[in-house]
Amino acid sequence: MDNRPIGIFDSGLGGLTVLKEIRALMPKESLVYFGDSGRAPYGTKSRETVIKYTLQDVRFLLKHDIKMIVVACNTASALSLEKIKENVDVPVVEVIKPGALTGVKSTRNKKIGVIGTPATINSRAYEKEIKRLDESIQVFSKACPLFVPLVEEGPEWWENEVAYKIALEYLSSLRNEKIDTLVLGCTHYPLLQKVISSVMGDGVNLVSSAYEAAKAVKKILDKNEMNSDEKNKPIYKYYTSDSVEKFKPFCSAILNDEIISVEKIDIEKY
Amino acid sequence: MDNRPIGIFDSGLGGLTVLKEIRALMPKESLVYFGDSGRAPYGTKSRETVIKYTLQDVRFLLKHDIKMIVVACNTASALSLEKIKENVDVPVVEVIKPGALTGVKSTRNKKIGVIGTPATINSRAYEKEIKRLDESIQVFSKACPLFVPLVEEGPEWWENEVAYKIALEYLSSLRNEKIDTLVLGCTHYPLLQKVISSVMGDGVNLVSSAYEAAKAVKKILDKNEMNSDEKNKPIYKYYTSDSVEKFKPFCSAILNDEIISVEKIDIEKY
Repeated sequence: MDNRPIGIFDSGLGGLTVLKEIRALMPKESLVYFGDSGRAPYGTKSRETVIKYTLQDVRFLLKHDIKMIVVACNTASALSLEKIKENVDVPVVEVIKPGALTGVKSTRNKKIGVIGTPATINSRAYEKEIKRLDESIQVFSKACPLFVPLVEEGPEWWENEVAYKIALEYLSSLRNEKIDTLVLGCTHYPLLQKVISSVMGDGVNLVSSAYEAAKAVKKILDKNEMNSDEKNKPIYKYYTSDSVEKFKPFCSAILNDEIISVEKIDIEKY
Repeated sequence: MDNRPIGIFDSGLGGLTVLKEIRALMPKESLVYFGDSGRAPYGTKSRETVIKYTLQDVRFLLKHDIKMIVVACNTASALSLEKIKENVDVPVVEVIKPGALTGVKSTRNKKIGVIGTPATINSRAYEKEIKRLDESIQVFSKACPLFVPLVEEGPEWWENEVAYKIALEYLSSLRNEKIDTLVLGCTHYPLLQKVISSVMGDGVNLVSSAYEAAKAVKKILDKNEMNSDEKNKPIYKYYTSDSVEKFKPFCSAILNDEIISVEKIDIEKY
């Protein structure tokens, strides 16, 4: 038994989709979330910048006596996982491997599509992991740089005509490749599931890296007997590098509940 | 005569449209440009975050023995001009007042539209300035948060169908108000001039804050006799907080020339 919190971070708000899944699957776990909204997005920035920011995020979380780190950001996972592991001695869960594995299990025709930020797609992290699991699978990747700002625009933009047009522009090449599985390689993308689904059609199975990462967290806690005990009253703490006023409404919309504790921090100090 | 360089900064790449106009109008001036691409965009972030970043940008430019600061970012101009002026003793040119003045001179029916980032529009900076100049003018404002990421996607996205759809979504309410003048209140927006124009129609005059700011720079240099002399061989230096490799191609595309000197800096130190 280990009642210490799990630390979760993302470039901004997308990682809340991972937090939501973790909370649903493991309701006794305390959680500390950091969203780097003051420097978001990561996915259009260079490798060196993403690594620098990620290590600052990790150093901040380590101040909270956490038992595990969840890299709830595909860009950070793709570009800086090794660097993170060099710097911490708690288990690290990232979002690429769980999503890739589920994609491999899901495909029947061995044609998988992967969408993500430019940084994630250019890193080829999903492609390498899928090929490592089954090299006979064909992988078709597509960067979708406008999806993150579209999500950050707010819920009224997640299903409107513009969202559909952008999705059509990005996804039609994947549709033409006759993939049967599409990995949503960015934790913002589950919020666009409806438009993505309507462009891709019923025959394509969407794999959310958010849900898969939550399952990976549970597996590691179970295996190492690091779960919080049944009587634990979980505490949720949220931190942002932009203003609290900008964080709160979005957080409430994704999590469907009131936020108890949000604090602004100066991430550049870490 | 004063051959010291002019310092120019923006949240990222949009300010290069201002630099371009300054260079065209004043070819003898040396220029130092800083683009904060590592933390871009500013326009979706909170006031406190924008002020903090802006003051760091200014402190960096002041290390270069500059004779003037150009705030080539509408968001920074709208939210932090007073703070900048408190911290420097060289002239400061921002982009709101020049654009507002030209808008006021341009309108015939006294109906002006203003588009910008959420931070710029929420600050009501343009509205206040236009009303100060002529309180009988009606101002219709609209935040266009996807325009900056759209521009940052690259030239192939500036005139495609998605760009047109997004413009239609944002601008149709302004079109219905029968404005005859539209102020492009973000230095990225001149790059979307074609789609904005095609949505608004021929009857609407577009005012670029980039060009107007360049004219304001010239006016102050002339008035204070601070121009570089005719024999000055101008030097252009570019700095970015993200990688040089990401900065160069965009810079070349906007300026239509080769970049001589680009350097990455750590803006968080300033």
